[in-house]
Amino acid sequence: MGFRDECGVVGVIMSPSRPPSDYPARLAYFALHSLQHRGQEGAGIVVAEPTAGADGAGALRDMKGLGLVAEVFTDRELMRTSAVAAVGHVRYSTAGEKNVRNVQPFTATVRGEQVAIAHNGNLTNANALKRELETRGTIFSTSSDTEVILHLMAQSVYGGSGDTQARLTDALGHVEGAYALCVLTLRELFAVRDPRGFRPLVLGRIASGEPAWMVASESCALDMVGAEVVREVEPGELIAIDRVTGSLRSLFPFPRQQRKACIFEHIYFSRANSDVFGRSVYMSRYRFGELLARSSPIPGGADYVLPVPDSGVAAALGFSAASGIPFQMGIMRSQYVGRTFIQPTQEIRDAGVKLKLSPVRCMIADKRVVVVDDSVVRGTTSRKIVRLLRGAGAKEVHLRIACPPIIGSCYYGVDTPNREELISFRLPADQQVCEWIGADSLGFLSLEAMQEFLGDEADDFCYGCFTGKYPVLPVD
Amino acid sequence: MGFRDECGVVGVIMSPSRPPSDYPARLAYFALHSLQHRGQEGAGIVVAEPTAGADGAGALRDMKGLGLVAEVFTDRELMRTSAVAAVGHVRYSTAGEKNVRNVQPFTATVRGEQVAIAHNGNLTNANALKRELETRGTIFSTSSDTEVILHLMAQSVYGGSGDTQARLTDALGHVEGAYALCVLTLRELFAVRDPRGFRPLVLGRIASGEPAWMVASESCALDMVGAEVVREVEPGELIAIDRVTGSLRSLFPFPRQQRKACIFEHIYFSRANSDVFGRSVYMSRYRFGELLARSSPIPGGADYVLPVPDSGVAAALGFSAASGIPFQMGIMRSQYVGRTFIQPTQEIRDAGVKLKLSPVRCMIADKRVVVVDDSVVRGTTSRKIVRLLRGAGAKEVHLRIACPPIIGSCYYGVDTPNREELISFRLPADQQVCEWIGADSLGFLSLEAMQEFLGDEADDFCYGCFTGKYPVLPVD
Amino acid sequence: MGFRDECGVVGVIMSPSRPPSDYPARLAYFALHSLQHRGQEGAGIVVAEPTAGADGAGALRDMKGLGLVAEVFTDRELMRTSAVAAVGHVRYSTAGEKNVRNVQPFTATVRGEQVAIAHNGNLTNANALKRELETRGTIFSTSSDTEVILHLMAQSVYGGSGDTQARLTDALGHVEGAYALCVLTLRELFAVRDPRGFRPLVLGRIASGEPAWMVASESCALDMVGAEVVREVEPGELIAIDRVTGSLRSLFPFPRQQRKACIFEHIYFSRANSDVFGRSVYMSRYRFGELLARSSPIPGGADYVLPVPDSGVAAALGFSAASGIPFQMGIMRSQYVGRTFIQPTQEIRDAGVKLKLSPVRCMIADKRVVVVDDSVVRGTTSRKIVRLLRGAGAKEVHLRIACPPIIGSCYYGVDTPNREELISFRLPADQQVCEWIGADSLGFLSLEAMQEFLGDEADDFCYGCFTGKYPVLPVD
Amino acid sequence: MGFRDECGVVGVIMSPSRPPSDYPARLAYFALHSLQHRGQEGAGIVVAEPTAGADGAGALRDMKGLGLVAEVFTDRELMRTSAVAAVGHVRYSTAGEKNVRNVQPFTATVRGEQVAIAHNGNLTNANALKRELETRGTIFSTSSDTEVILHLMAQSVYGGSGDTQARLTDALGHVEGAYALCVLTLRELFAVRDPRGFRPLVLGRIASGEPAWMVASESCALDMVGAEVVREVEPGELIAIDRVTGSLRSLFPFPRQQRKACIFEHIYFSRANSDVFGRSVYMSRYRFGELLARSSPIPGGADYVLPVPDSGVAAALGFSAASGIPFQMGIMRSQYVGRTFIQPTQEIRDAGVKLKLSPVRCMIADKRVVVVDDSVVRGTTSRKIVRLLRGAGAKEVHLRIACPPIIGSCYYGVDTPNREELISFRLPADQQVCEWIGADSLGFLSLEAMQEFLGDEADDFCYGCFTGKYPVLPVD
Repeated sequence: MGFRDECGVVGVIMSPSRPPSDYPARLAYFALHSLQHRGQEGAGIVVAEPTAGADGAGALRDMKGLGLVAEVFTDRELMRTSAVAAVGHVRYSTAGEKNVRNVQPFTATVRGEQVAIAHNGNLTNANALKRELETRGTIFSTSSDTEVILHLMAQSVYGGSGDTQARLTDALGHVEGAYALCVLTLRELFAVRDPRGFRPLVLGRIASGEPAWMVASESCALDMVGAEVVREVEPGELIAIDRVTGSLRSLFPFPRQQRKACIFEHIYFSRANSDVFGRSVYMSRYRFGELLARSSPIPGGADYVLPVPDSGVAAALGFSAASGIPFQMGIMRSQYVGRTFIQPTQEIRDAGVKLKLSPVRCMIADKRVVVVDDSVVRGTTSRKIVRLLRGAGAKEVHLRIACPPIIGSCYYGVDTPNREELISFRLPADQQVCEWIGADSLGFLSLEAMQEFLGDEADDFCYGCFTGKYPVLPVD
Repeated sequence: MGFRDECGVVGVIMSPSRPPSDYPARLAYFALHSLQHRGQEGAGIVVAEPTAGADGAGALRDMKGLGLVAEVFTDRELMRTSAVAAVGHVRYSTAGEKNVRNVQPFTATVRGEQVAIAHNGNLTNANALKRELETRGTIFSTSSDTEVILHLMAQSVYGGSGDTQARLTDALGHVEGAYALCVLTLRELFAVRDPRGFRPLVLGRIASGEPAWMVASESCALDMVGAEVVREVEPGELIAIDRVTGSLRSLFPFPRQQRKACIFEHIYFSRANSDVFGRSVYMSRYRFGELLARSSPIPGGADYVLPVPDSGVAAALGFSAASGIPFQMGIMRSQYVGRTFIQPTQEIRDAGVKLKLSPVRCMIADKRVVVVDDSVVRGTTSRKIVRLLRGAGAKEVHLRIACPPIIGSCYYGVDTPNREELISFRLPADQQVCEWIGADSLGFLSLEAMQEFLGDEADDFCYGCFTGKYPVLPVD
Repeated sequence: MGFRDECGVVGVIMSPSRPPSDYPARLAYFALHSLQHRGQEGAGIVVAEPTAGADGAGALRDMKGLGLVAEVFTDRELMRTSAVAAVGHVRYSTAGEKNVRNVQPFTATVRGEQVAIAHNGNLTNANALKRELETRGTIFSTSSDTEVILHLMAQSVYGGSGDTQARLTDALGHVEGAYALCVLTLRELFAVRDPRGFRPLVLGRIASGEPAWMVASESCALDMVGAEVVREVEPGELIAIDRVTGSLRSLFPFPRQQRKACIFEHIYFSRANSDVFGRSVYMSRYRFGELLARSSPIPGGADYVLPVPDSGVAAALGFSAASGIPFQMGIMRSQYVGRTFIQPTQEIRDAGVKLKLSPVRCMIADKRVVVVDDSVVRGTTSRKIVRLLRGAGAKEVHLRIACPPIIGSCYYGVDTPNREELISFRLPADQQVCEWIGADSLGFLSLEAMQEFLGDEADDFCYGCFTGKYPVLPVD
Repeated sequence: MGFRDECGVVGVIMSPSRPPSDYPARLAYFALHSLQHRGQEGAGIVVAEPTAGADGAGALRDMKGLGLVAEVFTDRELMRTSAVAAVGHVRYSTAGEKNVRNVQPFTATVRGEQVAIAHNGNLTNANALKRELETRGTIFSTSSDTEVILHLMAQSVYGGSGDTQARLTDALGHVEGAYALCVLTLRELFAVRDPRGFRPLVLGRIASGEPAWMVASESCALDMVGAEVVREVEPGELIAIDRVTGSLRSLFPFPRQQRKACIFEHIYFSRANSDVFGRSVYMSRYRFGELLARSSPIPGGADYVLPVPDSGVAAALGFSAASGIPFQMGIMRSQYVGRTFIQPTQEIRDAGVKLKLSPVRCMIADKRVVVVDDSVVRGTTSRKIVRLLRGAGAKEVHLRIACPPIIGSCYYGVDTPNREELISFRLPADQQVCEWIGADSLGFLSLEAMQEFLGDEADDFCYGCFTGKYPVLPVD
């Protein structure tokens, strides 16, 4: 129903005195590029130009579009700016309304102050708030839950003109669910995470010495521009960075809650070269693979471990290391598969057209292979891969999944299908799933093994999609 | 001066009686897609429509453009055809003239018969032939050596009207160098390799029972559409497939020569999931890596073997297996780097922007790492990678290259830089190269080891770029 | 500051039982095409699909873009609709923000009911209302005055859920200035003109017998689709057409005011083949030309009357008829001048490059010519034309303008420059204007002559731009 | 079979010493823009850069594309040149192959010298020559007759290397039919007209004093850039302008023939503001209208004379002047009709959608109107216009055509339909044509009246399309 999206956010702010290593808009651009995996539908950057406009009073200027980061922006517009700060956003391609109106950051004039907002997450009471606001005569111009925050800020009775922090805090006091936010005004950059910290947000420093900061969904974005990671923005924390004074304030304006970070960031969503929630994503996946090898060994052994590229590589390496079965890159991914690719007829598709994944026959024919993937959602891709490998002559195909069976949708900003489409909800017994997929054997990583690995932090993560038990129930 | 290109070719021909599993133009399209790595500048498909035209006499129709396969063609035009045969081509992006005129297949009316030609390779006497033809009043409309073959065919005194085979054989009798050709008329598809067989070409059968054939530069193209590999087109062989009679004739019209297949197809050029010159490319690379580990071990050992993605993966796996040093995917490649990407300023680039490759810190920081790549040409990429890894905290960086040092250009259709730009020509001692690149140690696979691996077939390959000794000296 | 635009609007509504002669979206498209002269910056159509949506509850769907009507829409999207009604809008290219966000019709959910609005005109108290609404916490998502109406509707205390008519009437009770509106809900189409009737709006019937209606800014839009003109929407009238009952209600909910139709619609803005405010535009221009010939004869006579194409043609014909001086099409307009045309250097421009207008020498060289134009704003075009004609050898150039001197800006929706840029404001004496332009003589049609022609209706028109006396003073 | 086109050509050459008023490529661009009416399918410019290339030996560089002049070229490429000369071409949209390959100027290396050629006209023995050349082994890379000239030049035995003039003269000695050519080498610009002078070509001087020349199909192109007309290139004349010496040589290398200029250039093809064949086009059309009024008066008189815009305007003015019936611009042409316009359904089209032409009702309803058009080809447009006027309430519609009935195709470069499609061939009696079109009366200008007007020059024009008697019979 449109009130859902998984996205990536970034914020940059620099002291005007600082000799810029690059334009804020360009830093945001490179950061968004490294967060591209978090959203391919559209991208936007809003820059704060404190001296722009006929009257020199400054303006927020937005650049947005549908498509990939490299398609949406031109270097000319990124450099044609006197910006000292920027916020950016990449948006996930959901089934819903594909319209440039829904591309963030959103901008609005809130009691005379220009504000831009970029949001990763999902508000679980957005529809209720929206209905209430509409009753009061509020008009919504997008189908996004993020707009609710803007209207709550505008209608907040707290804070005089220009006190964006008070309004933002007030507004967030009314919303529930998941949010990692970057909010920009002409003077300040705010970074906020919801009290449970569902979605990640990390604070970094661009170069050293001078007050130049970046916040981003993942550390890979800081890495991309050579910024150093300072620390996570904490769950429930609001960080305010003032462009003029250079000060960074940290506040915890909301009631404390048990942390509930999204474990799926480590399973699939984040980039392998990111540190997320204080852990290396690559290492988590590698360990999941090791644990999986131990809990789901291959009966009778196998010749090779093959990853589903690219997301299954780290887990497959862990599986190989723990099992002693050699790892081979036996399934290749095409670099050139675009979004507008012509589809083959069903007949020839059945005959074996492989647009996206191709088998390396010499590693498959007459071999017993283990295929390792990060997760199984609908099961259709796994089924295709098994068929692909059998077509290439595999003697046995054993499927190993480096996370537990998924039986529930996510309400906190990951775009998951309806429960009815989830193969492990439809077929509760793993053996049924194995048969439907057509593998010789199937093994999932157990939730217990996963939690054991997380150790003391096991309670700090949300496992709603594996258990159906949700930290915050959606109101809507 | 433009007379050089590395490319991929494909040809398809079907019996009209055959119930088509897909349109020939679409089969050629999917095949070209799987050969995209052989050329990204432009692509073309020419179809034979035997009943097209106002008079029903048939026509060759071409579809061409600059860009990737997925950008050049639309499904509408691929399907708007009564074609029974097609030839296709992908063209490499050389420094020279980027003009749609140079996109193959080329078409011409040769003594009343329409002919299309798609060429992979490089003619070593093209300029001399071109000058001679110009003296006779011939006009060239492209800057490609391939056009020489067309004019030689047109001016051949052999063969009456319509005897394309005689003309083609006559023309090829005058040219020297490397060619793997697909030639299409309204009635026949010809597939030819030069007598030394520099460039690959493989024959396949689409489904079974019926006369429906495909030839392509690599077996991955046959695999893509579910065709089965029949055999290589032999060096010096001309295969003619007649659409009407369904017959396939094999001729060897040229004097026999020692085979000289391009070893670089196995080192870098071909796709890992192809069989080329009768061998698995993946397996060759894996073995190169194993041999490299034996001949260039890491003094004092190392923590991880990291491949340069994607071309170094198979060799790195071989290296890991032979050395016992664990393989990790410690360098990540961005999926989204496009060709028109905005470039960061030098300042921030030095500060560490990583558009294309990103390090996975936990596998690098404080570690002794081995980086395995397929080859070193100018050395600039290796240098950047070493700097990237040191920036990510590597304690030691050992570079291992799964082929010998490259000291000479190629004259047979691989687009290599001038000799003066080759790092191993400029710095003959490996130690100098190592220092320039900044690695702690550097090792190449020796030519002897490579040849030992090839065994009885060692003489069947060309090593010109490693030795400077060329099977055919260029006339031009 | 952006709160100004001259535009064209259209609305279509059909009985569901009616066998459609064409899709409502397509009828709106053709109508907008014929109104293209009223706005070239962008265009939009919103359709009402009463049975759309997952729940079959219906939806308004919008199609919008920057550019010409023929560029913005595709036939596929116009036909992929179950629409029974549509509103459309073309937007004028003002200096302000060129952003697809500002392209109308605007849509919003007003207390649970979807509403689309298309507006031609300018509200003179929009900024004041906007400031007041912002104080109440309202967020504006465009820089258009039209959005004010939507928020006033949403916040209206009148009318329960779904009573759009009561809300619209309440909202319009607060605004001042000029508006001709088409408002669409899933059930009704509303057409409204402000009490002074500044901007035109005409009601028509598509074919006969069945309840299928169209409203549009000019009769040429009805003509385009073969609809017959029924009558003008009256100043101060609100017409509501119900899709289900087929009923058409007429209301006059606002206090009566003296009519003040924009005389400039007849001078320049409307298309010559339209009837506007009950009069033929072509005939008005022709008469203005006749009156001008009488009041400003050419001293000593002239050889030819030449119109400035295309807007001066009808007046020039009237001038020719009344003066007896033969009319010739001595200045030609290029059909191919696009908006992205390359500009010549100043040097060659001075040497005489004529991109847009070209002289027909044989009608100009050694001749005394009269040039007739509809109006003079900045004077720069007139000056170029005089120079063009002298360059083509004209012996004398007499300029005659078929309206009075313009000395004031418009506040009612015509995009006029600042007063300081108006040549007749800068140079109050016509003789000074004549000298600056470089003509041998200059004559304007007097306001008195114009009013005499209008006769009894003279008071029903606004002459603010000629007199500086405005029917409604702007609050902002 | 594609061997036909009507086009526009231009050539520019400047002394290197001359301070350029603008770049030659830009002058060619503006000239082509003014010749846009002669061809809308594609456009090309080839520039001569005498110092370009790695060796400084100079190069011809081409810029080409499908579409309008304003779409094909970018200012950046027009200015990124050290060119001292240029030739340009606009190509007509014929039914045949729409391929950028056919866009002129064509370039080739002819015996070591680079040559570019731009051609307006049609060779009547092109197919015969082509067959002969193909027998000799020549390959054609376009479907244009112009390429024949290039091959004849390349294979000419006259002239040593670089003697383009001798080769060109030799080549043209073999061709028959119509040609107005601009030929460019690195050193010289050649302008040639065939001995009968079917197609126009005019010589001009850019500014004064210095040797800077332009040749173009029509004088309007010279006018556009402020060049002054020097004289026509004579039928059978070859003008050679040397860039280095600045000399202009005139030769008449072909046997003299009776002039046969295309009368249709005056009737329809050329722009009204051009002088063509030494006469004003506007004035010819005006006189045709006068003569028509005398020879075909309206029985019983009429209220208004209406032109079919834009081509019938001058004739309609002449008709009005001679008949005394007032001229009115009663039919309006849309400025915005693009080439990709969405088509209305037949039903609504019948109901009266008017995309291209709109009636001004007040000049038509209840009136007896005369419609004047330049010519009638298939009759379908006339039929539509009559229906349009009756739909707008015309009491009587009298059609007057300012040229004789067309009964034959053109072989000299005007793209006319097959004879069977010509209404006056199908229906020899004017009365039948009148009935089919639906007019109340129909009158053509007689050939005799037209020839009388041309006076002494009557024999200097070709009337093949009116008489079926052709000066040169096509061989093909």
